[in-house]
Amino acid sequence: MNTATNNIHATRITALRAAMALEGIDAVLVPSSDPHLSEYLPERWKSREWLSGFSGSMGTLVVSASSAQLFADSRYWGQAVSELANTGIELFKIKSGASVEHLDWLANHVAAGGTVAVDGAVLGLAPMRALAAALAAKNVKLRTDCDLMVSVWANRPSLPTEPVYVHQAPHATVTRAAKLAATRASMKDLGAQHHFISTLDDICYLFNLRGSDVSFNPVFIAHALIGLDQATIFVGAGKVSAAIAAELALDGVSIADYTSAHAALAQVSGTLLLDPRRITHQTREAVSNAVTFVEAVNPSTFAKSRKTELEAQHVRDTMAQDGAAMAEFYAWFESALGKETITEVTVDEHLTAARAKRVGFVGRSFSTIAGFNANGALNHYRANAATCATIEGDGLLLIDSGGQYLGGTTDITRVWPIGNITAEHRRDYTLVLKGTIALSMAQFPKGVKSPYLDAIARAPIWAAGFDYGHGTGHGVGYFMNVHEGPQSISQGMPDPHTAMELGMITSIEPGLYRDGQWGIRIENLVLNVDAGNHGFGDFLKFETLSLCPIDTHCIDRSLLSAVEVDWLNRYHGEVHARVSGLVSGAAREWLDRRCLAI
Amino acid sequence: MNTATNNIHATRITALRAAMALEGIDAVLVPSSDPHLSEYLPERWKSREWLSGFSGSMGTLVVSASSAQLFADSRYWGQAVSELANTGIELFKIKSGASVEHLDWLANHVAAGGTVAVDGAVLGLAPMRALAAALAAKNVKLRTDCDLMVSVWANRPSLPTEPVYVHQAPHATVTRAAKLAATRASMKDLGAQHHFISTLDDICYLFNLRGSDVSFNPVFIAHALIGLDQATIFVGAGKVSAAIAAELALDGVSIADYTSAHAALAQVSGTLLLDPRRITHQTREAVSNAVTFVEAVNPSTFAKSRKTELEAQHVRDTMAQDGAAMAEFYAWFESALGKETITEVTVDEHLTAARAKRVGFVGRSFSTIAGFNANGALNHYRANAATCATIEGDGLLLIDSGGQYLGGTTDITRVWPIGNITAEHRRDYTLVLKGTIALSMAQFPKGVKSPYLDAIARAPIWAAGFDYGHGTGHGVGYFMNVHEGPQSISQGMPDPHTAMELGMITSIEPGLYRDGQWGIRIENLVLNVDAGNHGFGDFLKFETLSLCPIDTHCIDRSLLSAVEVDWLNRYHGEVHARVSGLVSGAAREWLDRRCLAI
Repeated sequence: MNTATNNIHATRITALRAAMALEGIDAVLVPSSDPHLSEYLPERWKSREWLSGFSGSMGTLVVSASSAQLFADSRYWGQAVSELANTGIELFKIKSGASVEHLDWLANHVAAGGTVAVDGAVLGLAPMRALAAALAAKNVKLRTDCDLMVSVWANRPSLPTEPVYVHQAPHATVTRAAKLAATRASMKDLGAQHHFISTLDDICYLFNLRGSDVSFNPVFIAHALIGLDQATIFVGAGKVSAAIAAELALDGVSIADYTSAHAALAQVSGTLLLDPRRITHQTREAVSNAVTFVEAVNPSTFAKSRKTELEAQHVRDTMAQDGAAMAEFYAWFESALGKETITEVTVDEHLTAARAKRVGFVGRSFSTIAGFNANGALNHYRANAATCATIEGDGLLLIDSGGQYLGGTTDITRVWPIGNITAEHRRDYTLVLKGTIALSMAQFPKGVKSPYLDAIARAPIWAAGFDYGHGTGHGVGYFMNVHEGPQSISQGMPDPHTAMELGMITSIEPGLYRDGQWGIRIENLVLNVDAGNHGFGDFLKFETLSLCPIDTHCIDRSLLSAVEVDWLNRYHGEVHARVSGLVSGAAREWLDRRCLAI
Repeated sequence: MNTATNNIHATRITALRAAMALEGIDAVLVPSSDPHLSEYLPERWKSREWLSGFSGSMGTLVVSASSAQLFADSRYWGQAVSELANTGIELFKIKSGASVEHLDWLANHVAAGGTVAVDGAVLGLAPMRALAAALAAKNVKLRTDCDLMVSVWANRPSLPTEPVYVHQAPHATVTRAAKLAATRASMKDLGAQHHFISTLDDICYLFNLRGSDVSFNPVFIAHALIGLDQATIFVGAGKVSAAIAAELALDGVSIADYTSAHAALAQVSGTLLLDPRRITHQTREAVSNAVTFVEAVNPSTFAKSRKTELEAQHVRDTMAQDGAAMAEFYAWFESALGKETITEVTVDEHLTAARAKRVGFVGRSFSTIAGFNANGALNHYRANAATCATIEGDGLLLIDSGGQYLGGTTDITRVWPIGNITAEHRRDYTLVLKGTIALSMAQFPKGVKSPYLDAIARAPIWAAGFDYGHGTGHGVGYFMNVHEGPQSISQGMPDPHTAMELGMITSIEPGLYRDGQWGIRIENLVLNVDAGNHGFGDFLKFETLSLCPIDTHCIDRSLLSAVEVDWLNRYHGEVHARVSGLVSGAAREWLDRRCLAI
């Protein structure tokens, strides 16, 4: 065990241990989670980061009387070693983000008869069940009713008070009333009289509302309870204006205080629809024993994944705006390179500034990744001013960025050669491009489980004996979370809900990463569109939505087939046709040059 | 409900109903299954066929006092309609072979308080659990302890008495002692002192024994109980000779009567390894309550799937023999076509006769499919003398056949043009060939879940808007079952046990079927071989094992890439090099001609 020094995090761990001792708790599990099971947490629920200092987006802290360890996967090891220095907390390296080695650790290190605590308000139902089973097998007690942070975390941040706003027509293409009616039709089909929702994007979608409570996702902190005739949104006082409340009331939607959600849930009788993967243990416990549960995926999860034709049209317009912003940025970048100091951080600044000038822009859709050479090989790299690389010399620059616009959400990755590049750079780049093209050109039966498409992008990269350690694609929201289900082009569980349906938007982003050398990823967003029926059921194909040139200088032409070259040239023709009218001057010249056929 | 006529099956159903009434049973479920959960059943356990007359390989019969229905998927509808005529049994069309609509039927048609019976001796643990849950939800009782066939089926066939024989070295490449030691090492790893096996191929593999008790699979009816020091095979009296028993005794293996298996199981104490997917309800019930269960896939299931290098070499030799047999057959076929009457049945006869002349041949590995034109579009078509088509005129002939040899099991499908063929024939044929080639050329990480490879074969067919309704590939045994797990290249559940490992043999068999017109499938067996490690973990690739020319007259050359043409030409070069020395005369000439590069 490390000796904790006079470090603020070591001090906080010591305070936590004192609180544990008072309650007779032998170990505390602190997950990266909140009552809404969100990807981005408001400050109030960043207990793990506050205690440990580790700021990665995934990681689980376990504190016992004699030790403390952070469980994190390889994406975070470098960051964790640095951030945990002098805290007394040890890094426990786990295989993947989905690994649950902390369960084994708890089961093996807490003596029979001992007690483990976790805040049931922030732990999902499924991980809670796994935890309970692991501990029960060793006769270890589990307490889920105490949030030790209440006493330990002085000056703990309050919940955000940012105002809720309406996602207006024309960008909102389906009325709130119609969305509620569709949800209620699904509830009736499932035999449910009530439906409780904790996931923020489901709530924003359903009520055509948006917020600014967390980073990047335009959501607000709330729960919702839908009945067959009325609905209630549980949200912090003052966040919903009187005007919006009045508008909601016209649709039979009332506002109640955020803290009253569980009390209201306790009053529900009859049948209740809950998505066990999208509620916490504490929410489940709040329900009366007399209620009959209907467990199913939230109907809004399916509904919001299937973009309407009007939404698709807004996204197409948004992509042209986003492409124009990138043309402006890259024109500046290429002209400035070698003349002024450009770091990974200034890339983010200039790129965001270019997007900010565009119609409908609201904010970034995630933290820009600008990784030069070795930094590009770190999957979740986020440059910061203290450590970022200056872009100079030779190599590859990977830029993964995206914007939130009123008419859609963007997410795009491009790789650019800097200075001189090698044959190995070209080979790797071309293999990844082949993967992107292979899947972009694919047709497939409507309803195919999206995980099965993963190998189509991987096959050209596998053919060289190479691979990448992340999924090929994720669903993307409509002015909503950039990571959205239910579909996922990755080797995960091909449940029925992962089926590919008309209107879904998904990323295609194969990659190739060489530790300490360079990283490559070429990412577009694609829309599921009709591909007809030729006697074997309805087929879908992808319409590529993202509109930004793909670098052609990195290509090893000998590795591309005529069909692949044709795809690339047609893509560049489309980019030019749709973006060139939105840019002028240097940006227009850059676009003209970068869209040339090869 | 149909009015049953004076039909033998109607009479049998009436007798069953009388037995049901005596026992107070409202409905009986008669699955296609046996105590070993085998694909091919001995006559004694063909209760469903005996009662209903339906001879398809999959189908579930449900008989109540007032109705009887056979649940079967689309592959069997034509056959079922024909075979069920005048039986009073209705065909209940189900979506796929894995559908369980019979559970819903029972739950909805048997009144609360009523009783459903099924013979627990022949129902797997998993289907039994599903049945019990469905009935319990409706307060319907389930009896699993009565085999009504005992009283209903006069002159029910006895179990086969065919002798067991030893799979000898050199074809058996690992000694029985070594296989038992490996199994025991796995048992220890899993914490099990005992291990009970009901699946016949696992037993045959483990003890280097074979039998002739069912069609096509060289297995014998038995159970086995493995302890850490000794093992027992439960097998019918007289089937194991004194000499073999003595040989087994040297390895600590004793013989006991087949009927004593469950009694022996009841004596087991301590920890017992069982594969819940590979034992029946009755077997599970036979175990003492004091036993601690270890549920895991039978270790032998993994072991037998990973062929040794010596086994692979025997398979390569066997494939050359099999290819030679096919060259002889096809040479005869092409010369006889138009001169003598050739039906789908005579194809089977001549092909089997050609194989029978080959070194190590034991029998067919499954029922030959020879489907001309529309018959080729029926996935499970089996020609019979009464209804088979004569091969004349124009169209496509699909032949799917295979042999059991002492040194391996073969399974190969080829399609041949008869007379004049159309552009549509060529397009479909070439698309399927592209699918076969795409997957044959694939490399992939060792350990990838085999279901994820399915889309690689489908992608070229999907690209045209077409698809096929079966999996792309199944594992194949070594002088053993032609359908063997654990790997499966199909869109099934990608469990950890489906991982691709060195030495596995799998089929690659994409297809394309046009109802009433023609069917195409091009199938080879492939071996997982090492593809090196290029910094991204160990990779595997496929070595194509099957050695028979692929028809080139059906190819639409414009649809093939240079890479695909090169694969085909190299394949034909390999076939010629390895088979030509084994044939002479017309067969040699046919091979020379059919192996020409395109």
